[in-house]
Amino acid sequence: MFDEILCRIVDETKGGIGAVLMGYDGIAVDQYFLPREGFDLQLVAVEYANILKEVRKTAEILRSGETEEVSIRTEKYYVIIRTVGDEYFVVMTLERDGNYGKARYLLTREVPQLLSALA
Amino acid sequence: MFDEILCRIVDETKGGIGAVLMGYDGIAVDQYFLPREGFDLQLVAVEYANILKEVRKTAEILRSGETEEVSIRTEKYYVIIRTVGDEYFVVMTLERDGNYGKARYLLTREVPQLLSALA
Repeated sequence: MFDEILCRIVDETKGGIGAVLMGYDGIAVDQYFLPREGFDLQLVAVEYANILKEVRKTAEILRSGETEEVSIRTEKYYVIIRTVGDEYFVVMTLERDGNYGKARYLLTREVPQLLSALA
Repeated sequence: MFDEILCRIVDETKGGIGAVLMGYDGIAVDQYFLPREGFDLQLVAVEYANILKEVRKTAEILRSGETEEVSIRTEKYYVIIRTVGDEYFVVMTLERDGNYGKARYLLTREVPQLLSALA
């Protein structure tokens, strides 16, 4: 059920590599990724989970309201972290030349589906 | 000179609030912001400087290449952090309903100008 939603997000995005649904405790609920040499999506998700925690703390200090999304662009990849309720988030990775706008749109579209599946 | 470039970025973006050019040591080189009650752009920049440091460390661990941009969307704001060479970055804040795409474009357009001004 989760993997179907994650699969839709990755497959419908040009350049999509993978997506993990994860709790703030760093434990993955489910994941979907295209086979790819030398790329450990699980490790990526765990590392970025820590970033998201820092970002949330910062948003609290600055009273910016809830953190909804964090995007990181490096030389090689885009990583988009989308919060799903208070306890979960999705980490999605795509190629640097992938369709970043589409990925953000699909994540936003599928969050309600993920939330009802988690309920 | 720096403030002119920062001013262009903020003023040409619908919903632009302010932009700070900062070193990784947390010291601001220059800044430009629209007067706004209850909003401390300097504090925002310092807090997000720490996030950027974490993101860079993570990118190193994951061998993702240089970090170029980090975007954070909260209930109230967008914050875009754009690296400018190895030692500096710009933190730009805009309204949640501001033109995020335009802000990213303008930051990308002005990075070479900031780099030559810093040289």
